[in-house]
Amino acid sequence: MKPLKLVVVGVGHVGSYVLADAMKLGLFGKIGVIDLDKGVAHGEALDQSHATALTYMNNIEVTSGGYEQCKDADVIICAAGPSILKDPDHPEAMPDRTLLTTHNAGVIREVMAEITKYTKNAVIIFITNPLDTMVYIAENEFGYPSGKIFGTGTMLDSARLRKTVANLYNIDPKSVTGYMMGEHGMTAFPVLSKLNVAGIVYKEFASYYNDVEQLNAEEIGKEVVKTAYDVLNAKGWTNAGVAQAAVTMAKCVALDERSVYPACTTLRGEYGHDGDVALSMPCLIGKDGIIRRIAPKLDDWETRKLNGSIDYIKSTMKEAKTGPEFLKK
Amino acid sequence: MKPLKLVVVGVGHVGSYVLADAMKLGLFGKIGVIDLDKGVAHGEALDQSHATALTYMNNIEVTSGGYEQCKDADVIICAAGPSILKDPDHPEAMPDRTLLTTHNAGVIREVMAEITKYTKNAVIIFITNPLDTMVYIAENEFGYPSGKIFGTGTMLDSARLRKTVANLYNIDPKSVTGYMMGEHGMTAFPVLSKLNVAGIVYKEFASYYNDVEQLNAEEIGKEVVKTAYDVLNAKGWTNAGVAQAAVTMAKCVALDERSVYPACTTLRGEYGHDGDVALSMPCLIGKDGIIRRIAPKLDDWETRKLNGSIDYIKSTMKEAKTGPEFLKK
Amino acid sequence: MKPLKLVVVGVGHVGSYVLADAMKLGLFGKIGVIDLDKGVAHGEALDQSHATALTYMNNIEVTSGGYEQCKDADVIICAAGPSILKDPDHPEAMPDRTLLTTHNAGVIREVMAEITKYTKNAVIIFITNPLDTMVYIAENEFGYPSGKIFGTGTMLDSARLRKTVANLYNIDPKSVTGYMMGEHGMTAFPVLSKLNVAGIVYKEFASYYNDVEQLNAEEIGKEVVKTAYDVLNAKGWTNAGVAQAAVTMAKCVALDERSVYPACTTLRGEYGHDGDVALSMPCLIGKDGIIRRIAPKLDDWETRKLNGSIDYIKSTMKEAKTGPEFLKK
Amino acid sequence: MKPLKLVVVGVGHVGSYVLADAMKLGLFGKIGVIDLDKGVAHGEALDQSHATALTYMNNIEVTSGGYEQCKDADVIICAAGPSILKDPDHPEAMPDRTLLTTHNAGVIREVMAEITKYTKNAVIIFITNPLDTMVYIAENEFGYPSGKIFGTGTMLDSARLRKTVANLYNIDPKSVTGYMMGEHGMTAFPVLSKLNVAGIVYKEFASYYNDVEQLNAEEIGKEVVKTAYDVLNAKGWTNAGVAQAAVTMAKCVALDERSVYPACTTLRGEYGHDGDVALSMPCLIGKDGIIRRIAPKLDDWETRKLNGSIDYIKSTMKEAKTGPEFLKK
Repeated sequence: MKPLKLVVVGVGHVGSYVLADAMKLGLFGKIGVIDLDKGVAHGEALDQSHATALTYMNNIEVTSGGYEQCKDADVIICAAGPSILKDPDHPEAMPDRTLLTTHNAGVIREVMAEITKYTKNAVIIFITNPLDTMVYIAENEFGYPSGKIFGTGTMLDSARLRKTVANLYNIDPKSVTGYMMGEHGMTAFPVLSKLNVAGIVYKEFASYYNDVEQLNAEEIGKEVVKTAYDVLNAKGWTNAGVAQAAVTMAKCVALDERSVYPACTTLRGEYGHDGDVALSMPCLIGKDGIIRRIAPKLDDWETRKLNGSIDYIKSTMKEAKTGPEFLKK
Repeated sequence: MKPLKLVVVGVGHVGSYVLADAMKLGLFGKIGVIDLDKGVAHGEALDQSHATALTYMNNIEVTSGGYEQCKDADVIICAAGPSILKDPDHPEAMPDRTLLTTHNAGVIREVMAEITKYTKNAVIIFITNPLDTMVYIAENEFGYPSGKIFGTGTMLDSARLRKTVANLYNIDPKSVTGYMMGEHGMTAFPVLSKLNVAGIVYKEFASYYNDVEQLNAEEIGKEVVKTAYDVLNAKGWTNAGVAQAAVTMAKCVALDERSVYPACTTLRGEYGHDGDVALSMPCLIGKDGIIRRIAPKLDDWETRKLNGSIDYIKSTMKEAKTGPEFLKK
Repeated sequence: MKPLKLVVVGVGHVGSYVLADAMKLGLFGKIGVIDLDKGVAHGEALDQSHATALTYMNNIEVTSGGYEQCKDADVIICAAGPSILKDPDHPEAMPDRTLLTTHNAGVIREVMAEITKYTKNAVIIFITNPLDTMVYIAENEFGYPSGKIFGTGTMLDSARLRKTVANLYNIDPKSVTGYMMGEHGMTAFPVLSKLNVAGIVYKEFASYYNDVEQLNAEEIGKEVVKTAYDVLNAKGWTNAGVAQAAVTMAKCVALDERSVYPACTTLRGEYGHDGDVALSMPCLIGKDGIIRRIAPKLDDWETRKLNGSIDYIKSTMKEAKTGPEFLKK
Repeated sequence: MKPLKLVVVGVGHVGSYVLADAMKLGLFGKIGVIDLDKGVAHGEALDQSHATALTYMNNIEVTSGGYEQCKDADVIICAAGPSILKDPDHPEAMPDRTLLTTHNAGVIREVMAEITKYTKNAVIIFITNPLDTMVYIAENEFGYPSGKIFGTGTMLDSARLRKTVANLYNIDPKSVTGYMMGEHGMTAFPVLSKLNVAGIVYKEFASYYNDVEQLNAEEIGKEVVKTAYDVLNAKGWTNAGVAQAAVTMAKCVALDERSVYPACTTLRGEYGHDGDVALSMPCLIGKDGIIRRIAPKLDDWETRKLNGSIDYIKSTMKEAKTGPEFLKK
């Protein structure tokens, strides 16, 4: 038999947490680490390998090296490329992830060119921002099998949505069912019509609590987007939440759990779009990646928001096409 | 500091699985085992203690003895009393849990009399059947602090509901939000109006799948009740699911997770009942047990089913009052 | 990718616990259940499948059926055949596992004949007693690749040894390094010369504790053998410890952990024996099963004990050869 | 009941990993975060809180704030103060942790002054370097109950020792029993006389492998110290290993596991020292912190090394006494 293998590409703030979380799973027997800075890759792998000697830690073989590590990978998580950081001069700023577009489009094209030298079998989960554009590039420019590439997308924004709602009522966020759709970024929106606690739609649930102000979709959406920047501006970056999101999806793939998670994927007929845009929507995820897209019916406000988000993603996609990295190709 | 302590009362088919599952949690540092058959309690504790010497196992101190073990318990799970078993002569039978009423009413009164000699602080989770009547007795006859006693109730039936629906669409049952309400037993009913996959109400979700026959509430409910007997008649009893349900609730209490789970509790004003019946409904559960009952609005069919279930539970409660065990007191 | 698959053969007292423990691992995405009593296999699988709907539970696909489930198995754990049980008429008896020899030799030959119709790739871990003889048969009569078959052997006896020593000093049994060797049964013996706490050999360690009586090898060995029967005679059978032992080894294989565990294997030159007997000794275990046998130098008492144990196992092996099951072949 | 509470003081490179690892335990229901930079504390807590909304994550309440959070803490882990970092101008340098002495002595005195305003009940685990001196100060200058303060010490160095040996033979480091003693730093030394694999002392074990060069204590010790700097100079700091070490010890306390781990503690009669120096040696750890020091008999080389290490720690302790922070008091 062959133990399952995960490869983590890019071990900066985010990737190093992905690695740390993956070491705890007891699911992947081998973990490969790749980073532009080979020293960092080596250091992270070595540090984690020391921890395997401690009680309760699985004896995972964690290695560092080049993309040849992808050859027999089952799952690859890509957190390569810089992420948005706090601007010390503007501690209240909310820098848009799309600032990274042209640079990271180049990064992702390089990563995909390297990975596809070795495999088209592994399921690849992207974290790199601006995510929707990065996923679109990876999924559509390299002839990779359909569904095997997707992005964490609004998996994290949805966790923040659930936590935001859970905070209002002081309950477990896992008891809240709900998600953000659209861009992983500023234009993501809550699908309030589907948000529920124990099956009770938000509006009804909120009506049970006289002492808590009921929020509308617009307010909740703003709150969720803002909490990302609260983290960013407080600690300088965000990593814990998104790393856990990626690892949760990797586990879903490796165990073939067939869970429904919001993931970033290229639309194939949903909401009147076919192959022209990638965004986050509920998807059924298993051993082959995205098995099925599940498109909930949206209300008017949600539909407007979706369209706005699609426009925004498309403008970013355009930039990625015509940016300097594209010319280099 | 004091490690958290769990006590398991009754380690037959169900309680032994509760113990086994609890050993894996790494949450309770001490686990006490109580059983009418002191040998069985001793043997279970000893067997589990041997396992603590294996890699990855937490060094839990597991002891056996009398009810004095409850003195410093944080959580008590009670699986005392016989459960319904397969009748070899009628392998297709679906024996009602209420057959156990008079006997187990006596058992529960004895258990509560013993526990309350030592503590009224621990949260007590009941599994013993017929559950609703047992919870009513325990919660109302011994002056135990309100909310600190509840039953696993339809936590298990709800898991079966989610799995039943998940099977139809080949998805993760954790991606299904939904629950059974009412009696833990024959008259439990699915709250189909709240059942959803990723927030999409069942009827809408099912309409996405042309190749799967859409079920109505009546059919789903029957299916769920039947699957319990499929287990019973196949292996002779049921234990794995209900044990995990109890342990999940115990963890919710011990970490103060404030999750919303269907639990069996005495109604206090919900659905027009106040203190006269115990049944399962969504509850917010934390360190002090049930913090809040969350009563979803039911549709007509559900309301009829609820009333039918209440009538049935009440008839069982009556039997428990006038039964031979009651006279013995 | 293909999720890892475990098959459990035989889900009586022991196998049902193996299944329950394996469900918690989050390592095998598929688990197949096989039992002579197809109903029991079905019931166990169904019961466990209900539990997957609960929070925190992995969505493992658990199925029941025939040996065709072994075709794509990565690991198979065999707990088929009856185990020794408490004799109600002789509650102090210590029934020898070898009473099961002729019956279970037949069982194991049937199991192996079935498995090898579908695979010679899976690593097979045996629990069935008398273990050493069962492993010898499975490993040597079916042309299975060397090392891919082994038994839990004194993995459990060693856990009991560590727990027994740990009890004396009130410490974590995982802080004790040590093992039993030889037969999984009455003639197993502690390798006291290697037993240590934090590297401090038992004799020295014990000398630090004036208030605890130091035990000799003979006494410790008896204590360990006796504690197995304490469990048996108290609860009627033993299962929790041995199930966890098997699952720990299965994890070691599936993650390719390369841990050193006492396992039952046919000797290949160790201690002057080559292919004529199977017993438990420290082995390096990984994805291909037993990678290397590590034969510690034994002192005189240990050598005598080893030889006595070998003699006893051989007499059992002889019985298995000439027994009724053998004739049936 | 009261869920168990952990407080993490200092969430830089190390403390943020402690927090991340602790979130996964499912043991502490409440985690408080303290940092000089309140924004960082807030950001880390918020980021982790978002992750609690993801499947499989425990609903831990993670807060940030001041030392008042220690009031009801069960365990406190202190990673406050700067750690040694890679010097970009000297990428091969091995900067001594004692460079941090005077600064961090001040930090620790401040931390202890703050903690003791609120509690003397919590067990406090220190990570701040130079560790031995920091532990000595914390344990001896504030009247804290004996044993309730200790340091991770050579818990990490010992993990590295086991991993280093395990690498030579390609085995699970958890199958290696062994530890470093003395300073957590340059003068730590391997207790080779106690190092064993499956109870087989290193020298004997190594003799089984003709193809692997046997190392002596001096060489192994150098290798272990060097691997720390391999991590440091490769990734810029070390955190994964030490964070896991601290969390493993915290779990040992919270579950009262009574494991034997190398921990940094003030000697009380061991090796001819009583209250004059703190260093790492095997300790029995449980709910009240260090329950017992277990002093293995050392051979000549080890004794010389121990004495050298003690001299070095004492010189650091002297610096901590007379340094600028001391004057400020």
